[in-house]
Order: sequence, then structure tokens, then C-alpha cells
Amino acid sequence: MNFSEIVNQIKIKKSYLCIGLDSDIEKIPNHLKNLDDPIFEFNKRIIDATKDLAIAYKPNLAFYEAQGFSGLISLKKTLNYIPNNIFKIADAKRGDIGNTSKMYAKSFFETFNFDAITLSPYMGKDSSLPFLNYDNKWIILLALTSNNSSLNIQHFKNNNDKKLYQHVIEDSLNWSSKENTMYVVGANRLEEIEKIRKIVPYNFLLIPGVGAQGNDLKEISLNSINDNCGIIVNISRDIIYSDSSTSFELKVRDKALEYQNEMESILNKKGFL
Amino acid sequence: MNFSEIVNQIKIKKSYLCIGLDSDIEKIPNHLKNLDDPIFEFNKRIIDATKDLAIAYKPNLAFYEAQGFSGLISLKKTLNYIPNNIFKIADAKRGDIGNTSKMYAKSFFETFNFDAITLSPYMGKDSSLPFLNYDNKWIILLALTSNNSSLNIQHFKNNNDKKLYQHVIEDSLNWSSKENTMYVVGANRLEEIEKIRKIVPYNFLLIPGVGAQGNDLKEISLNSINDNCGIIVNISRDIIYSDSSTSFELKVRDKALEYQNEMESILNKKGFL
Repeated sequence: MNFSEIVNQIKIKKSYLCIGLDSDIEKIPNHLKNLDDPIFEFNKRIIDATKDLAIAYKPNLAFYEAQGFSGLISLKKTLNYIPNNIFKIADAKRGDIGNTSKMYAKSFFETFNFDAITLSPYMGKDSSLPFLNYDNKWIILLALTSNNSSLNIQHFKNNNDKKLYQHVIEDSLNWSSKENTMYVVGANRLEEIEKIRKIVPYNFLLIPGVGAQGNDLKEISLNSINDNCGIIVNISRDIIYSDSSTSFELKVRDKALEYQNEMESILNKKGFL
Repeated sequence: MNFSEIVNQIKIKKSYLCIGLDSDIEKIPNHLKNLDDPIFEFNKRIIDATKDLAIAYKPNLAFYEAQGFSGLISLKKTLNYIPNNIFKIADAKRGDIGNTSKMYAKSFFETFNFDAITLSPYMGKDSSLPFLNYDNKWIILLALTSNNSSLNIQHFKNNNDKKLYQHVIEDSLNWSSKENTMYVVGANRLEEIEKIRKIVPYNFLLIPGVGAQGNDLKEISLNSINDNCGIIVNISRDIIYSDSSTSFELKVRDKALEYQNEMESILNKKGFL
């Protein structure tokens, strides 16, 4: 998917919702556990219940890898099941060099047909370049993450008071563009969002940390949305584990609809719709 | 494996050689390609030819994941085939938070039975802690890597001229120990090795970048070996792809033996043996 296709989907669905498929065999509803491929059956129901409300799905690779081979089969079936007009993000947080990154790019972009992958910036641009050789595929660089200990590293400052995460974003501007690169910024990093938008006014930001992590959707949205919307907000547990009954899909849809409604009202307020 | 078992293996084998199993289906000898599981057959021959010379093997996860399910089967068979007294490193460069890291720990330490995993430090200690809950398992934090673009990030300096990689190592000292944590330092980072040894005189360093990447084994070794040896030097392509004939194992062994001999002489010079 390219930049304008993503913007277009946001317009059509009045939503910038990404649903995180952190699908954990221990947390899915019991009645699915006896089926042939419980994780895929769970994801399928989530997708059916939300595909008109979400513009992106983000499987968290660790959850699939932890299941070994069967987890990867569930993942592949899930990817095949997601409609083509929905953005597919591999939350993999990889970050290796040339030859290895090339292998990962092949795996995620070809074998699994993801549209995007999250990457760690620690090894510099060598980690990213092999992924940027693919047309209409994306990298999503960790910039300022939502976890507690991230600031110990990401707020490491130079003598101009520039923080590491700012440097990471600036460095990436030398070899990437808004057409192929997004940045992860935690929903709890409100105090930094203005600085981030100064460096990358036009890029998409992928924002986790709303929902189970307790941060407000409205505030981070109002402070980061740009003329193309420019943000994708991820919600995982708060939607996918909202109910464990045999009709859990209904509650999942309600929850997603709630978020979509709030997003629609925010997009209206920002004059995007 | 615990710290003293590693030191002991170095003593017994007079070697601190790690062989990187970057096993690429396109690069392995042709005669193996018609076998049932070419990647495993290749690794098996490498292991048979070098297991008395190497104290560690380091499969690079990307190479296995790029082959999809069959790659993971090759990996699992490889792990099962490596003798118990050899240190097994997952070169995975993961780095995610709590729940996800827990999943990765389960996958690498339980499903695959690796002894150690390489991790990116960008998200801080949250990425590492779940791995440290396992006894006799290790994390290997990326500190100062050997690739070109790494310095753009890892040499980002604070107002005391402290570089990011130094900060990363220092930060980790608050929640890790020499019994469970090693650091990746590229063989080409000779000018920084003294600073690194000041911060972590006792920890093991995992040193890539010798061999195909063209750096000298001797110089980096003489400058970083401590009383427990304290370094593991990884060599991948220069050993595993040293020949592509039907008797490639012989050349592989010769190459590994060459490195082991040089290591033995260095260990002697340093008074370790």
C-alpha cells in the first residue's frame, strides 16, 4: 500500500484504528481452543468483526513465534485472510545489518506479504535500507516508545539538549521519506509530540499505548494529526480480549466501534473529513 | 551453561571460537541441495567438522526465518544436534517489552533451547528482564556493532563526551551481571575497546567482524582478553563457505583449526592457558 492509499482508507472508514493481533493461546476464549487452529480462528473472528472499522492490523510476531511452527502457520493464514485494502504491520522490532536485513525483508515482505515492519534503529541505516528496496512497503522505526525503561536510553541527550530519539528521527531523514517510513511514538509521550511533529510534520506516526496501557486517545490524537491524518493508533488487548464468551465477537466489534466513533469525531474536529 | 562452564570449555578447547551458522540455501554446496533438509545437512557437517574447535555456535535467525516453516525445522534439528557443552547463541537481535519479551524468551530458551540471545538495547531494560528470569541463560546486548552506519547512532554523545554505547553498557550494570550478560563489540572497534573494558572488565564480549569482514583477530583479542578470557570471537562466512566441493568439510575444518591455533597462541601469550 502506498501513502495515498492509506490516507484514502482513513477517509473511507473515518478511522485511523490499527488492531494489534497479540493473539495469545492462553487468553483467547475457551470455546476456540478445541478447534484445529485456535489462533487463526480467533484472528479470523476479530477480522470479520472489525474489518470495516480498522485500517490496519498488527500481529505481534513474538506471540506467533512462541508457538513454534504452528504459530507461523496461524500467522500466514491470518495474513492471507486480511483484506487487501487493509495495512498489514509486522510488529517484529528487527534490526540487523545488510545481508540479514535482506533475509528479513524477504521473509516479511515476500513470504508473509506484510506491508510494513517495525525496526529498531540502534544499528543505524544499514538495518533499514534493505527493506526500502521494496516498492510500496514500509519501515516503522522505533523512535520514542511507551514502556517505562525506554527513557533511560531514548532520552539520552547530547550537548545541545537533543535527545537520542530526536537524533534517530533526524538521521533517518537522510535516507528515507514519508512515502516509506513511519515512526513509533508512545501515546504517553505527549510532552514530546510537538518536537516530533517539527522534525517529521508529514510522516505517519504509529502510536501504541492507548487502551489497556491507559492513555487517552483524544489528547495524543489532537496533538499529532496532520493534513493527511498522519497517525495510526494501535489498540490490542482492550479490543481483542474485551470478552471471552462464545459471542465475544460482538463485544470486540462494540469496542472497536467505540474507538472508531471517537476517531471520527476527532477527525471531524481536525477538519480532515 | 553458566559462566564457569564457558570458561572451562575455553580452557579445554584452547579456543574462544564461535562459528556463525549463517546458513544460506543459495550459498551451501550444490551436492547438499537435493537432500531432504539441505540446511540441516550443511549445519550437521559443519558441526561434525568443528565441534572440538568451537566453543559456541551462533545461528543467525534471519536465515532460517527466510525459509519459512522448513527453516525453523532446520533450526530446531540443528539445535538438537549441537553437543550440550557448546554454547548456543540465537543471533536474533530482538528488543521488545515485557509481555512480548517473555514470549520470545519462551520461544528461544524453551522451544529451541538456546543458551543465549542477542538483544537490541533501544527500549531499555524492559526488553532484557524477562530473559534474565532463566537460570544459566544469557542475554548479549548490542553495544558497539561493526557495521558502517552504527556509529551515527552508537556514537551519539552526551555533554560529558559519553557515547550512547557506553551509556547502554553502564545502564545495564544496574540490572544485570557478568553471570548473565555479554556485549556485542565489533572487531573493528579497537579504538574503543579500552573504554569498554573499563566499564565491564569482567563480562564476556561477543566479537563479530573477524574473517570475511576483514579485521585482525590478534589485535582485538590482545586488547580485550581478561583473566577469564572474557571474549568469544564469531566467524561465519570465512569458515562455513570456505569451500563448496563435495568434501567441503575438510576445508571448513582447516579454516576453523587455523583460527583455533591462532587463538591458542594468543591465549598462551596472555597467560590464560
